[in-house]
Amino acid sequence: MYLEAGNVSATDLYQALVSIVSPRPIAWVTTLDKQGHVNLAPYSFYNVFSSNPPVVVFSPTIRPDLTKKDTLLNLEEVPEFVINTATLPLAHAVNESSRELPRYESEAEHLSLELVPSVLVKPPRLKASPAHLECRVRQIISLGTQPRAGNLVIGEVLAIYVNDEIIQNGKIDPRLLNTIGRLGGQWFCETTALFELHRPT
Amino acid sequence: MYLEAGNVSATDLYQALVSIVSPRPIAWVTTLDKQGHVNLAPYSFYNVFSSNPPVVVFSPTIRPDLTKKDTLLNLEEVPEFVINTATLPLAHAVNESSRELPRYESEAEHLSLELVPSVLVKPPRLKASPAHLECRVRQIISLGTQPRAGNLVIGEVLAIYVNDEIIQNGKIDPRLLNTIGRLGGQWFCETTALFELHRPT
Repeated sequence: MYLEAGNVSATDLYQALVSIVSPRPIAWVTTLDKQGHVNLAPYSFYNVFSSNPPVVVFSPTIRPDLTKKDTLLNLEEVPEFVINTATLPLAHAVNESSRELPRYESEAEHLSLELVPSVLVKPPRLKASPAHLECRVRQIISLGTQPRAGNLVIGEVLAIYVNDEIIQNGKIDPRLLNTIGRLGGQWFCETTALFELHRPT
Repeated sequence: MYLEAGNVSATDLYQALVSIVSPRPIAWVTTLDKQGHVNLAPYSFYNVFSSNPPVVVFSPTIRPDLTKKDTLLNLEEVPEFVINTATLPLAHAVNESSRELPRYESEAEHLSLELVPSVLVKPPRLKASPAHLECRVRQIISLGTQPRAGNLVIGEVLAIYVNDEIIQNGKIDPRLLNTIGRLGGQWFCETTALFELHRPT
């Protein structure tokens, strides 16, 4: 199969890209609007890109009806966010939180997820998630106003919280953290089939 | 464990970030310098961020000795690249290609990986990889000149090639593609433990 970006539908391009670029980590993002309503939504267009400064990027894309997602609207009002780590026991809640609720209804409340205060930013953390990144927006790069256009939310990580239950010998143990990844279609992966390769020197 | 970015070493911050933000997809990137030397290197600070326009981002970080990686030097000379998909049968070669060779030595040749021409960009593709993204640089955002500083290479996907062997009923099948993901430490994951969750409507 050979696709040229100019010659295929946006849907075909989307399906090919999300199938090939995998497994994708999931940012389960909490934000606040200026009145203090909490939004929670999952984004798999996400990764870390630098550790000095510590920088993550995620992308809430423009909806098919040309509107911006609540996460993006909130960041324009309060430019801070928390990335809650998406793990296997939380997979059902992660997926359910992608449901489009009216702007001022909280997905966290809807799913009975307890919120706890963050240390350095205003949006709260999800108690059920074992690791959190507290972030401040550095810059948002819009890639357009058309459906499926990305918005690169470039965030600086101010603080990291990790539940002691996933630490073994002073290090985060991936077998205890048990993150989930996103693939194409409706597919997710567990991170249970692991192997180690030592970096060549 | 609680870490504030201003109060911990760059190494501790790096270890925490790469453990928490997982599983990360791997861009196995081919680039060219202006004389035509081919470079191949793996980057797990990588993802897709938009499908309309189709945009991927990856980040070659500044080395501990303050130099830029060959991939970044090449992109400054020839602003095009190919992302070869990193799959389980190729895991050993992906890891070996992270070895730092002198600038004009080809990792692909060193690992006996066959190169085939791309359609729309100058850097070649790896024949052994079952899916490729041919990309052109839109913008590079430097996050600094210090060790571990990221460089956001924002690339537009011009063309996608997918080997027919990984297509089932007209779609890319993740069980046939079998990508690998990167976690913290020396850990990688297979994408064999899969589950499906239908997006709520």
